[in-house]
Amino acid sequence: METFDRTRAEKIVAHMMEKDEFSRWMGVEILEVNEGYCKISCPIKQEMLNGFSVTHGGIAFSLADSALAFSAATYGRVSLAIENSISFTRKTVTGNKITAESNCLNLTHKTGLFEVKVLDQDNNLVALMKATVYRTSDEFPV
Amino acid sequence: METFDRTRAEKIVAHMMEKDEFSRWMGVEILEVNEGYCKISCPIKQEMLNGFSVTHGGIAFSLADSALAFSAATYGRVSLAIENSISFTRKTVTGNKITAESNCLNLTHKTGLFEVKVLDQDNNLVALMKATVYRTSDEFPV
Amino acid sequence: METFDRTRAEKIVAHMMEKDEFSRWMGVEILEVNEGYCKISCPIKQEMLNGFSVTHGGIAFSLADSALAFSAATYGRVSLAIENSISFTRKTVTGNKITAESNCLNLTHKTGLFEVKVLDQDNNLVALMKATVYRTSDEFPV
Amino acid sequence: METFDRTRAEKIVAHMMEKDEFSRWMGVEILEVNEGYCKISCPIKQEMLNGFSVTHGGIAFSLADSALAFSAATYGRVSLAIENSISFTRKTVTGNKITAESNCLNLTHKTGLFEVKVLDQDNNLVALMKATVYRTSDEFPV
Repeated sequence: METFDRTRAEKIVAHMMEKDEFSRWMGVEILEVNEGYCKISCPIKQEMLNGFSVTHGGIAFSLADSALAFSAATYGRVSLAIENSISFTRKTVTGNKITAESNCLNLTHKTGLFEVKVLDQDNNLVALMKATVYRTSDEFPV
Repeated sequence: METFDRTRAEKIVAHMMEKDEFSRWMGVEILEVNEGYCKISCPIKQEMLNGFSVTHGGIAFSLADSALAFSAATYGRVSLAIENSISFTRKTVTGNKITAESNCLNLTHKTGLFEVKVLDQDNNLVALMKATVYRTSDEFPV
Repeated sequence: METFDRTRAEKIVAHMMEKDEFSRWMGVEILEVNEGYCKISCPIKQEMLNGFSVTHGGIAFSLADSALAFSAATYGRVSLAIENSISFTRKTVTGNKITAESNCLNLTHKTGLFEVKVLDQDNNLVALMKATVYRTSDEFPV
Repeated sequence: METFDRTRAEKIVAHMMEKDEFSRWMGVEILEVNEGYCKISCPIKQEMLNGFSVTHGGIAFSLADSALAFSAATYGRVSLAIENSISFTRKTVTGNKITAESNCLNLTHKTGLFEVKVLDQDNNLVALMKATVYRTSDEFPV
């Protein structure tokens, strides 16, 4: 039985975030890291809008996907999303701020099931993601 | 029974693309528009990478989601993705070019089912999306 | 703004269940009905097993799908599942009892987003479903 | 590089089917087995209907899930569905016959991505499934 090492988890996430150019482009801020858990946020900016002048669906997905990747990494092994299902429930626009909170619901030796909630600044549900990651045998060198 | 108007469909997609700031940031190019169909592509650039130095999952999703939106719009009514499920099968890196091809598999008065294939420049499957859109009653003013 | 009528919701669900031959074959028991909510259970019997002598994936799905249908019906209009995504986390076998609990997470005029948890008799997560229903304009004649 | 052994694949599927009590209850018939591929069918009977007197969603799912399991088994290793996403496009009723055709779209050492089409007797699309399986290291003893 492994013991969770929060300091190492925070280092791993900080290290991933530092190299994650797209999350940096989005302006992602890491709010909380815990075992199988990560909460991050980003502001909605002009370049994130689609042809209807609302936030492109890819932005909520991307924020959720980053939160997923970080939360899966807290267990210490390199993990890759293989299947993500997302439902959209609310539009956001420039000036809004969205937050993604990823939670591990089930962990096996090689896979993990996560749920990620995307909320706006007023805690309204913007999108809900259910995702499966594949856990490689590579430990993070951190 | 409505008749498909390809010229109008192309105008609608061109109009959406012109206003779609995120697709423009991605460098999306529209390759083909047809009834319930759209094929688009974009190059993978440095700012699209994640913490593992491969393309962020959100990029393949976003390209697929734009192709989906354009293909749904070819029917003339404003349509919104409500559920997107995506499976990732292959990594891409800077210098690669990815293409998303969206096809309508089923259309009802208020919903549509689409499948979107994301391929790399060598026609390898990068991701597969299955998505449901909600069709509003608003006609595009084009 | 509609007011929730629990007595009518219970009548609708009882009426649906009475005519639902497959749920009756499964031995479904209705445990609780509320606004956008339904909890049901069934025992795992020999005829529900697959070629590995564990419960066929279709059984957990079917129980979840029945709970979904009942919970969506509590709003009074005939509603149809259009997309269901399910993740499996734990095997069950003959003699086990599984429970499905469906909750509405978002409701619009024409669609609804639901999450359904399937648990075994010890409250372990067996499967998690995220589903979208289409709400017709037909009111239940109850 | 493994060579595909069709005779062994057919034996594995026949062996699974023989023990699969739920597929037998459904009246599943195996129509074709090939590498990463399986086509099966079943008739819609009275006990498969839901409260609206149409086929319960769990039946199309279950047939697709059996086809998925058989097609994944053709590679020789015990494989388990971990995530299934299904979209429903058409009702069926008693007297109809449905067919499920599963195809492997991508195979890695530990996972596989499959697409399963469910069609009615007139080749109309009834449901579309996208699914991920986990491939254990256990070889079938066949």
